[in-house]
Amino acid sequence: MSEQEQEPLTIQPAQAALLTPYLPPPPPASSPSHSTNPKKIHVTLTYAQSLDSSLALAPGLRTVLSGAQSKAMTHFLRSRHAAILVGAGTAVADDPGLNSRLSSGSGAGSQPRPVVLDPRARWAVHEGSKVIRHARDGKGLAPFVLVDQDRFGMELGDASGVDEGRRRVLESVGGRYIPLKARGPNGRFEWVDVLAVLEREGLGSVMIEGGGEVINSLLAPPGNGLVDSVIVTIAPTWLGRGGVVVSPPRMRGEEGAHATPVRLTDVSCCPFGEDVVLCGRILR
Amino acid sequence: MSEQEQEPLTIQPAQAALLTPYLPPPPPASSPSHSTNPKKIHVTLTYAQSLDSSLALAPGLRTVLSGAQSKAMTHFLRSRHAAILVGAGTAVADDPGLNSRLSSGSGAGSQPRPVVLDPRARWAVHEGSKVIRHARDGKGLAPFVLVDQDRFGMELGDASGVDEGRRRVLESVGGRYIPLKARGPNGRFEWVDVLAVLEREGLGSVMIEGGGEVINSLLAPPGNGLVDSVIVTIAPTWLGRGGVVVSPPRMRGEEGAHATPVRLTDVSCCPFGEDVVLCGRILR
Repeated sequence: MSEQEQEPLTIQPAQAALLTPYLPPPPPASSPSHSTNPKKIHVTLTYAQSLDSSLALAPGLRTVLSGAQSKAMTHFLRSRHAAILVGAGTAVADDPGLNSRLSSGSGAGSQPRPVVLDPRARWAVHEGSKVIRHARDGKGLAPFVLVDQDRFGMELGDASGVDEGRRRVLESVGGRYIPLKARGPNGRFEWVDVLAVLEREGLGSVMIEGGGEVINSLLAPPGNGLVDSVIVTIAPTWLGRGGVVVSPPRMRGEEGAHATPVRLTDVSCCPFGEDVVLCGRILR
Repeated sequence: MSEQEQEPLTIQPAQAALLTPYLPPPPPASSPSHSTNPKKIHVTLTYAQSLDSSLALAPGLRTVLSGAQSKAMTHFLRSRHAAILVGAGTAVADDPGLNSRLSSGSGAGSQPRPVVLDPRARWAVHEGSKVIRHARDGKGLAPFVLVDQDRFGMELGDASGVDEGRRRVLESVGGRYIPLKARGPNGRFEWVDVLAVLEREGLGSVMIEGGGEVINSLLAPPGNGLVDSVIVTIAPTWLGRGGVVVSPPRMRGEEGAHATPVRLTDVSCCPFGEDVVLCGRILR
């Protein structure tokens, strides 16, 4: 593990105060715990983009966009959610740590539960995967990986259809494969099903970080109806045409006219170093 | 002319203070005047986009993106520049007024000189064009229209190649066609040539407002080397795939690698109603 990975991050109180209205109440100290809150899971969508709404220069190409302060913000957000969710593409391309490195001085909460949406079980998780190392070292929680129940011939709670080696790695640190019917288009999960799994696991809040496919599907109906808050970091740069772009599929209203675009309300903004963080709630 | 067009706009002093570091010094009271400033023309690039960097839902489809406060900001910026420049596509699609309706209480400056880049003389300017009406009513200046010198067989200052009716309309309010060699790719002007024309006309600053083609060409090298400030209004909405997008053509560095993307420095941000205005300078 590099020095850089171990360095704790800090966030200024004023910055934390700006973000707090958009966040769920702090999760209980022990995690995972079964939620006693009857309210549905709080969903925060958050990502960092360029001014031309790119996440990366090309698919699978990790692109450093945001600065140190925005990075600390991401770790602050992670400490304030019960779960952190990414798509399989991000897990494969980035080998992400999916933990919070917020220093205790910055009011660090508990570690979030990593959740990977991986209907086709593409993510070859192994002993060296960052998230597994973090779980083993007590620096993060072990991941839950959601795979297509039909494709892997699994019964509820039985991951027999997935590669035995990967399964053993996951389970050795307390993680597991969770089978779920992929009822969405192109063999994807429906968001309502994913959130139901998280609620069943006692996770009261989730921060959805990426990648592009996950974000775009969540910004389009009906996914956006499930989002409570959106926190976008805008890096003051243009990556140019051909990047991995956040732009939801265009919806058509009656008679083929453009449907009303998805919009935020209760918008705040704050500089984080050279980046700008924009927060809002989806306008219903 | 509608009531709405006549309504004066105001800007808060704190908002004006945020913008001022990115603006040229106020233009002289009489305009146009020959610049006595040896410094080259100040170029401000400014536009309003969605979070997914769209200017409009479709080419030629005027899309209201930003709110009342951002609109007032645009008119404030117009009052602080000697010229306002748009491409022919915007002139054709939007019939823009290209004047400043800032109320005198908000420290209104002089009116900017409208400049339209129209190498192929596509803009059918007529008596009813908003910019002509404004010039006639003393609510704005008459436009300068830059056309391709070779295509219209014009000598310097002789617009004989352009439709006689349009020329008469322009000249009747004090505007004119200005011939310029279109040395750029696809029959476009080179930015350095356009700015040289404006300097020759005694215009010490220009605000470049759109549309997509103009903005994208100015954000790519070598155009971006001529930009002093960028002021982007971000409306908190996603227009979805298929819009008119601001994203410059991707440059390739040596051996085909991605060149360093264009980046802003000295970044500030400020809420304008529900919109966020982001200001910066191109990082050299």
